[in-house]
Amino acid sequence: MKADLLAAGLAADRTRVDTRLAALFEGRSPCAPRLEAAMRHGALVGGKRLRPVLVYAAGRSLGAPDAALDAPAMAIELIHAYSLVHDDLPAMDDDDLRRGQPTVHRAFDEATAILAGDALQALAFEVLAGAGHPRMAAQIRTLAAAAGRDGMVAGQALDLAAVGGHPDLAALATMHGHKTGALIRAAVRLGGLVAVDERDPRLWALEAYAGAIGLAFQVHDDVLDVTGDTVTLGKASGADAARDKPTYPALLGLEGARAKARELVEESVAALTPLGDAAAPLAELARYMIERDH
Amino acid sequence: MKADLLAAGLAADRTRVDTRLAALFEGRSPCAPRLEAAMRHGALVGGKRLRPVLVYAAGRSLGAPDAALDAPAMAIELIHAYSLVHDDLPAMDDDDLRRGQPTVHRAFDEATAILAGDALQALAFEVLAGAGHPRMAAQIRTLAAAAGRDGMVAGQALDLAAVGGHPDLAALATMHGHKTGALIRAAVRLGGLVAVDERDPRLWALEAYAGAIGLAFQVHDDVLDVTGDTVTLGKASGADAARDKPTYPALLGLEGARAKARELVEESVAALTPLGDAAAPLAELARYMIERDH
Repeated sequence: MKADLLAAGLAADRTRVDTRLAALFEGRSPCAPRLEAAMRHGALVGGKRLRPVLVYAAGRSLGAPDAALDAPAMAIELIHAYSLVHDDLPAMDDDDLRRGQPTVHRAFDEATAILAGDALQALAFEVLAGAGHPRMAAQIRTLAAAAGRDGMVAGQALDLAAVGGHPDLAALATMHGHKTGALIRAAVRLGGLVAVDERDPRLWALEAYAGAIGLAFQVHDDVLDVTGDTVTLGKASGADAARDKPTYPALLGLEGARAKARELVEESVAALTPLGDAAAPLAELARYMIERDH
Repeated sequence: MKADLLAAGLAADRTRVDTRLAALFEGRSPCAPRLEAAMRHGALVGGKRLRPVLVYAAGRSLGAPDAALDAPAMAIELIHAYSLVHDDLPAMDDDDLRRGQPTVHRAFDEATAILAGDALQALAFEVLAGAGHPRMAAQIRTLAAAAGRDGMVAGQALDLAAVGGHPDLAALATMHGHKTGALIRAAVRLGGLVAVDERDPRLWALEAYAGAIGLAFQVHDDVLDVTGDTVTLGKASGADAARDKPTYPALLGLEGARAKARELVEESVAALTPLGDAAAPLAELARYMIERDH
């Protein structure tokens, strides 16, 4: 029953952000229609919408109204979408399939994929600034720092540098803490910033939570790359091993990686204690994070 | 004498923004040093700093203090720098030389160049939001809109689509109005927004000015591609013709293109009338724009 309620809530939040993301591409007469189509493809095709779901859940846990959470939810997903478009490029991971569909450079071409990613990043900031929230400066700083050279992009650079190397657990955690962790922490912080100001200690609790689930998410992703199948994942399974990418199962064994993910989830739930009952949906989300099959 | 004063003022503003851009890379222990080095290369090697110069001149014409103009001046140059890094990529213009130096993907590698461009874009918004100006929301919206799918990136997409085609003057103006014009208009508007609010009619005068000089700048760039030499330009001359890129000299002849540039500069100067004597430096800048040899 509890699991059903969680599933229904996740579905509702996904529909909410999907509808709003789709609206960014409606009623327009774009001057560069091919670019626009590539952006749509990158932003609207499939996706778990995990980061927007976290924005909503974190914001609600501190009493933020849903309507004020839409802009940060969209903005963080646009940053995530742009990063996938660029990550899939031939010079990067060279992937043909994403979310069960051709990647943007396969459906269009490489130049258009580079530009579509660039424009999705700009759109993220435009959407966030356009909402005109009173704490918008802090929101933009949070998003830009998480997306840039001290966050996600640094993680991608570390990831590329690690291929074929043999990083230890600490190096792997640093890479993922930037590559996927930075945006997950930003999602939770952006939701929180809608309700409270930058110095509110409840933001620290949210950030401790987000740090642990960000890593749990990645450990579970590595597990799925070993145990999942291509159809369910929507991308090629076994891709990490084929590329000689360092993974948690490679370092800890499959059971060791699963145990690590469970441990991180318990850590994330413990971090929520100061927030009381209002944080229950965040705890459920953390558990869901390592039970999903794609 | 007037030309000397202009040159000294330009040099001072360039030094001002160069110093501040360099400081963004000092005193850091970046977790991805190669990415950071590529960003430095993209942001700090050479450059006319035309857009920051326009931010300062436009802001001063409405009474903005220099210190409040630094953040928008840096932000717009970071967007410009990122766009050059991506524009030079093999999948785009495939250039080896920029500002007399190897392009970022030649000095580093393609993946690093893509990521460095991405991180420079994020840094632009981080710098602008970090300044915490009272009209920051309008500034971020201006920058994001000018950089994205209705501005610069759209122009790059139109430019790619036009190679080998035969666009007329109107199509060429639309492409350049987005590709280079959007950021030049944004530079002037960002400067203005430091002094006055979004509905102030003096912003319209600045924007009319910027629209005309943006196009004049591009017409003159096309002329330089025909008449300049590789050493002075810092990039290969004759590159447009070699790529069968549509240009103003190709459509209007060399003298016709020069006359068009002069006409646009007169139009830009006329647009400044409502601003009175305070706009004199902007008028001088417009004239400089079509006299420069690189």
